[in-house]
Amino acid sequence: MRARINPASPFARKVRIVLRERGLSGQVEEVETSVSPVAPNADLARSNPLVKIPALILDDGTTLFDSRVVCEYLDTVGSAPRLFPAAGPERWNALRLQSLCDGILDAAVISRYELAVRPEALRWKDWIAGQRTKIDGGVDALEREQPSWGQAFGIGQIGAACVLGYLDFRFPDIAWRASHPGLVAWFEGVSKRPSVRDTTPRA
Amino acid sequence: MRARINPASPFARKVRIVLRERGLSGQVEEVETSVSPVAPNADLARSNPLVKIPALILDDGTTLFDSRVVCEYLDTVGSAPRLFPAAGPERWNALRLQSLCDGILDAAVISRYELAVRPEALRWKDWIAGQRTKIDGGVDALEREQPSWGQAFGIGQIGAACVLGYLDFRFPDIAWRASHPGLVAWFEGVSKRPSVRDTTPRA
Repeated sequence: MRARINPASPFARKVRIVLRERGLSGQVEEVETSVSPVAPNADLARSNPLVKIPALILDDGTTLFDSRVVCEYLDTVGSAPRLFPAAGPERWNALRLQSLCDGILDAAVISRYELAVRPEALRWKDWIAGQRTKIDGGVDALEREQPSWGQAFGIGQIGAACVLGYLDFRFPDIAWRASHPGLVAWFEGVSKRPSVRDTTPRA
Repeated sequence: MRARINPASPFARKVRIVLRERGLSGQVEEVETSVSPVAPNADLARSNPLVKIPALILDDGTTLFDSRVVCEYLDTVGSAPRLFPAAGPERWNALRLQSLCDGILDAAVISRYELAVRPEALRWKDWIAGQRTKIDGGVDALEREQPSWGQAFGIGQIGAACVLGYLDFRFPDIAWRASHPGLVAWFEGVSKRPSVRDTTPRA
């Protein structure tokens, strides 16, 4: 199997952490792939019509995307403990947390496009403020929920690690540490895991 | 249970179709909710920090989001036939198709914000073109895949109906019917289902 990833992408990082947590790194080649919302990568488009990463190309040529589908698929490969609860309230809680983290990341990535890709004269402050409301509200929700996580490191917590790592990487000015002491301690702890440590975002 | 929806939202429509297909309309009140990416709805923010619809508020006060999580949750309520295959290649195929449709809708909704919400002087044609590439590539992929669907109407096909309905609603200029004859015939057929007919988008 081959995973199309980029070391700067927080959604690709979810997949890369899942590969490491489940001991699958040796079975999946990580192929570094450049993407841009304004210059679609024609080679990637042949695998994923949405021209996005992450995408997982199976040995039969089938391509799975997006990060949620790839992560849940990888959770069924091999015999390591599962990162997605199979059923019941635990499943809905984990999927809701994953969705919260993906939503924060969507807002952060779209803000990054506005602030770093769009020509400066075309930037819209109301749009940036609206996305910032989602980021701030989302991180506040993570702070409230974090005490309930205990030692768990499932798909929801993987999402949270990707959120905090991405804010450190692209939005140091948001300074999330200043008002989220529970997340500071939690992130310090999980950052020692090889899966998290070895996937720290880089440009 | 209460579902926060809006009759213009294609992601809320996925949930509304699932409710009808699974015979759950009587158990879930649909609460019409206005959202704007630049004027966050403070009432909705209390249920969903991402300030997005759809969101499903359970009887115990828990709120589930986004559309994928809500649809999969609703698929476990009651005893109607399942819309999400439980496991195996059928599951990954259905989730991949749902993801393809959600990605087309993301590109379409973000284009709608650019063309109808953002001040005209701040619009960026390269951004609109990049999103259009995703829409066009995605619909072409649906056209190629449609013959394999047969009579199935699971979560992937529900997504496809929401895509085509949203393009008709907001992007008649894209004129998808002109070059996708398989989808034209398929959409005409599924549009007779009460779940699809009764959720046609409106402003």
